[in-house]
Amino acid sequence: MKPRLAWVLGDAAGIGPELVAKGLANDELRKICRPVVVGPRWLLERGMQAAKAKVAAAACQVEQMGSVPDRMVPVIDTGWPEQEYPHGVLSAEAGALCIEMLRVAVDLARTGRVDAIVFAPLNKEALHLGGNPHSDELHLLAEWLGDTEAGEINAAAGLFTTRVTSHVPFREVPSLLSPDRVLRAVTMLYTTLTWAGIEPPTVAVAALNPHGGEHGLCGDEELTVIEPGVAKAQALGIPAVGPYPADTIFVRATRGEFHGVVTMYHDQGQIAMKLLGFDRGVTIQGGLSIVITTPAHGTAFEIAGEGIANPGAFCEAVRLAVKMAAGRAK
Amino acid sequence: MKPRLAWVLGDAAGIGPELVAKGLANDELRKICRPVVVGPRWLLERGMQAAKAKVAAAACQVEQMGSVPDRMVPVIDTGWPEQEYPHGVLSAEAGALCIEMLRVAVDLARTGRVDAIVFAPLNKEALHLGGNPHSDELHLLAEWLGDTEAGEINAAAGLFTTRVTSHVPFREVPSLLSPDRVLRAVTMLYTTLTWAGIEPPTVAVAALNPHGGEHGLCGDEELTVIEPGVAKAQALGIPAVGPYPADTIFVRATRGEFHGVVTMYHDQGQIAMKLLGFDRGVTIQGGLSIVITTPAHGTAFEIAGEGIANPGAFCEAVRLAVKMAAGRAK
Repeated sequence: MKPRLAWVLGDAAGIGPELVAKGLANDELRKICRPVVVGPRWLLERGMQAAKAKVAAAACQVEQMGSVPDRMVPVIDTGWPEQEYPHGVLSAEAGALCIEMLRVAVDLARTGRVDAIVFAPLNKEALHLGGNPHSDELHLLAEWLGDTEAGEINAAAGLFTTRVTSHVPFREVPSLLSPDRVLRAVTMLYTTLTWAGIEPPTVAVAALNPHGGEHGLCGDEELTVIEPGVAKAQALGIPAVGPYPADTIFVRATRGEFHGVVTMYHDQGQIAMKLLGFDRGVTIQGGLSIVITTPAHGTAFEIAGEGIANPGAFCEAVRLAVKMAAGRAK
Repeated sequence: MKPRLAWVLGDAAGIGPELVAKGLANDELRKICRPVVVGPRWLLERGMQAAKAKVAAAACQVEQMGSVPDRMVPVIDTGWPEQEYPHGVLSAEAGALCIEMLRVAVDLARTGRVDAIVFAPLNKEALHLGGNPHSDELHLLAEWLGDTEAGEINAAAGLFTTRVTSHVPFREVPSLLSPDRVLRAVTMLYTTLTWAGIEPPTVAVAALNPHGGEHGLCGDEELTVIEPGVAKAQALGIPAVGPYPADTIFVRATRGEFHGVVTMYHDQGQIAMKLLGFDRGVTIQGGLSIVITTPAHGTAFEIAGEGIANPGAFCEAVRLAVKMAAGRAK
């Protein structure tokens, strides 16, 4: 049985509705999953216009999803009043609509009506203006789901990464590291990799200091924090390795030595991932009890509505969600 | 007139002599410069054996260099007693010989007998055991030359980088940054780029904090240290830009937006440069009054003597030294 996936339209002023329409018109994706669009019917229509793709879709209530004929796509209309949402204009209203769509999608997942969620690009600032009390959508989703260990996971070029610290000043990074936090990041990445069907996955952990600290000669966090964290993971049976010098860990990963890399701070991973084409990659909302993925790129306001948005990363997000939904169900 | 370049054989137990022999047998390199080998004649012979390349060479004193016929390569023999130096074995003796060869090469440059120096890979540990009182060869060279602002510059894939701090613990980086240190790194990179024939070069400066510090919301070094450093450079007429977020600055550079990138710490640049193939790149001994380059890779002890060493990076180091010698003479 193909998994059912909620496809959330994303920010109404961005390329999200167009990407969803292009995804619906993609036979390969329709072969691997049964999409359920979450969002106003009129917004999906707008995406189809931009995409120049016409797909049979039926607006319905949650309870009617099962009775929509197979050749048609159920659209769980959030009942949001039709508004213009001019292309490329950031707004609180578009953010509030996004929050509403995400809430409906999470309810679908929580009640077992869908097996995973893929959301098209949203805008963090719009989300904030629209009422998100958290720093990002990940922590909003985590709150709704009651999950306490959420963390962003990035996937590109076959490599998965997550980080122990994220949007914090550089100088605060060392004091925010601890063996338990390293362990949590390793565990989260390990779970994601196994859900993604990589068994057994190898998770490599990056060092903090140049050349891996040179056995304590150039910084001691490797000895006092990172190694103990890796040891804790190993004691739990997780095949974690490291810490390894950060400047070669990604080169080694691209050669196939590791499936995942845990970094200590934002730029340590992002410098590498962006060079590896992460803008065409996928972000996984890691640590959650349900599978949620999204393309790594943003709303691309500057080309919204033009029909030229590349659906590659959205399609990748769908493929990965399909794999992870199957892995999670095992 | 083709520039005269001192080619230093490098560590006797590594692939250096083989690389020099392969370089001498390369017609393209011989067309753009006149090499002068610095090192024992018997060590060059050993390199030729490994390389299976026979090149006409004449051992001579410094004063006789000019009278060696054009078709022959002058070899400034350092008079070092012949020893075995088994391939792949790190030793104080090989390090001491390296120091002696470098000293002769620097004397040649200082007296105007050569226009630049390219040295084949040496081993920092052997150099240390052989009597180098400094942390690396760069600071030894700087001492001999009386230069006070030395810094390593890395070049790969058409991109040049240098860093404000280098082999220091992560947690000490913020306190080691200052506007003047940023200025010095920018100036050094700018000089290197102009010597390399890029006019006018654009030097971009990386931020320290995630997303460039978000205008002070996530760390303040951009506002208090880096921007003032960039402003000082601009006041001197150097087209410096930034600070820019570190996770996209290299992607932008690879697209041709900048010629050089100044980073704040070791891994910030090295994560990117190693993914961009820096192991096949060139290291420039920056900030010195003469041009000195070397391949970025090491002595490759594990394949020394086998004849399979790839001379690509050594040839690049020669080409770059030729360009920079011309640019410096302007």
